[in-house]
Amino acid sequence: MKAITLAEYGGPEQMAWEEVPDPAPGPGEVVLDVVASAVNRADLLQVQGNYPVPPGASQILGLECAGRIAALGEGVTGWNVGDEVCALLAGGGYAQKVAVPAVQLLPIPQGVSVEEAGGLPEVACTVWSNVFLEGRLAEGETFLIQGGSSGIGTHAIQVAKAFGARVAATAGHDDRLRFCRELGADIVIDYHDDIAAELKKATDGHGADVILDNMGAKGLANNLSALAKDGRLMIIGMQGGVKAELNIGALLAKRGHISAMGLRGRPVEGPNSKAEIVDGVRDQVWPLFGTGQVRPIVFERHSMADAADAHRRLAEGGVTGKLLLVNPDA
Amino acid sequence: MKAITLAEYGGPEQMAWEEVPDPAPGPGEVVLDVVASAVNRADLLQVQGNYPVPPGASQILGLECAGRIAALGEGVTGWNVGDEVCALLAGGGYAQKVAVPAVQLLPIPQGVSVEEAGGLPEVACTVWSNVFLEGRLAEGETFLIQGGSSGIGTHAIQVAKAFGARVAATAGHDDRLRFCRELGADIVIDYHDDIAAELKKATDGHGADVILDNMGAKGLANNLSALAKDGRLMIIGMQGGVKAELNIGALLAKRGHISAMGLRGRPVEGPNSKAEIVDGVRDQVWPLFGTGQVRPIVFERHSMADAADAHRRLAEGGVTGKLLLVNPDA
Repeated sequence: MKAITLAEYGGPEQMAWEEVPDPAPGPGEVVLDVVASAVNRADLLQVQGNYPVPPGASQILGLECAGRIAALGEGVTGWNVGDEVCALLAGGGYAQKVAVPAVQLLPIPQGVSVEEAGGLPEVACTVWSNVFLEGRLAEGETFLIQGGSSGIGTHAIQVAKAFGARVAATAGHDDRLRFCRELGADIVIDYHDDIAAELKKATDGHGADVILDNMGAKGLANNLSALAKDGRLMIIGMQGGVKAELNIGALLAKRGHISAMGLRGRPVEGPNSKAEIVDGVRDQVWPLFGTGQVRPIVFERHSMADAADAHRRLAEGGVTGKLLLVNPDA
Repeated sequence: MKAITLAEYGGPEQMAWEEVPDPAPGPGEVVLDVVASAVNRADLLQVQGNYPVPPGASQILGLECAGRIAALGEGVTGWNVGDEVCALLAGGGYAQKVAVPAVQLLPIPQGVSVEEAGGLPEVACTVWSNVFLEGRLAEGETFLIQGGSSGIGTHAIQVAKAFGARVAATAGHDDRLRFCRELGADIVIDYHDDIAAELKKATDGHGADVILDNMGAKGLANNLSALAKDGRLMIIGMQGGVKAELNIGALLAKRGHISAMGLRGRPVEGPNSKAEIVDGVRDQVWPLFGTGQVRPIVFERHSMADAADAHRRLAEGGVTGKLLLVNPDA
């Protein structure tokens, strides 16, 4: 098969579409013929050498994909060769074939093409695990999504609205703020403004019960200020740096919670596992595609052979939704 | 009635045992004849003027007490005048009578005297809300209690053991470390050592699934280092300062959680309320007194009239368990 390989750590120029050995399914795994994968910001970090691959995972880029089951490993039940599926991956998505534990498979949601589904598992599992499983966002609560026009953001807005939350989204330009509103955001805030002050103005001083943040250090103080009493700050990215002063007194005054969680290093099964999250997504989120409350937001399609171009595009900024990487031979 | 009053903010010398007006029960409240209250570290902060009384709460010190129901307010059912009870208070415990919402009442646990019960509600509700409700400590997990010989600590060790956790406790002197072991701690660590390193040594590198911390800023980096994957750091005090650098990358690498919560400012009923916590304590913790798995740890009894002496004693350090304040006329 062909896959994107890295000559060495660096930039997109290190990425090449080359012949590599086919994967074989281990016990409990399936091998997929990949139709499409998608770009995540973590992939850019991995190319730079700033996101070590977890032990046992493929060295090939790619945290999600969709395609058809080509082979079943020992002990896999409930799936058949030829089934169209999408999957949360620990790596290996930028390739024509990938091996993945069967518990990380999801059906293609109703009304979604196989290709579009290649960009869903990572956003859906990230939003479900952070905003709902751990963040426990409830109907009627206020949810602030930082970076509302991103792949994560565009999905989070729709799902939170479907679950009855009041949704506030930040973005950096008028057209992207407008897009967040079209997706269902009740409140949109330009992130060049004081986000906490604007959110409080728009919520009669209440603030956010749950915040999903991709900035890390840079946003910490303002996020704490934006939190409502008993609020939960979920940090999934550190685009604004790693270290920041934490005012524990401010956190205590709000009975606040800060969590920082990723998907990739989780165990496949058991407590806090990928399987647990995938189960929740299938049962709670996938039906929302069928009802039309949630749809995939695809910004551009690139040939997987040109994944480097897609990386450059994401790094440039201004991408609203997902960048798909389509297997040129699928 | 008599109560401890404060001439002005300062030290224990500001505290006097004086005649004040009796409280009356509002709707949903009862008035108790207080047998005993107990000293909490928050009381010392309140005397200094560093713990503002929440709106609507009594200005009198005292976050817990036990006694007998003297009067029922409108709409109170399930309790009778003369019932022996203890109660979580928003204030008012250092007095001969106190008004309290009936949902904050607890029966006297089996095998515990009314006097001893005066020092239970605050520790029991703090441990239940932090370690179990929010921290979700599960059987077989490792629990680290910072300050294991304190009022909170001595209770937390026993309850965590009863729920099947592996318990590690810190203290600053050999006799207090020994006391933690007698209460059930599996691992004891002198807090002058590197706590995270010692804990990892004692747990094959696992660390703590839940940490209950009273130091705040000073312990933050070491607590993050001591956390296991998916670990929960619960901060309930800031004896080591308010502001510290948070390494979000270190938190993310562990999928870690930090919460900082108090009891006093919570709503009486509804989500995250005192009533919710009190219900859990009654149903889950109180039975452990009947089975002998948990007992009240009383360090000294003081006359409530001499509450200032008890404050000085707590400030001195070395108190293992609770300091009770006994109503001299009860």
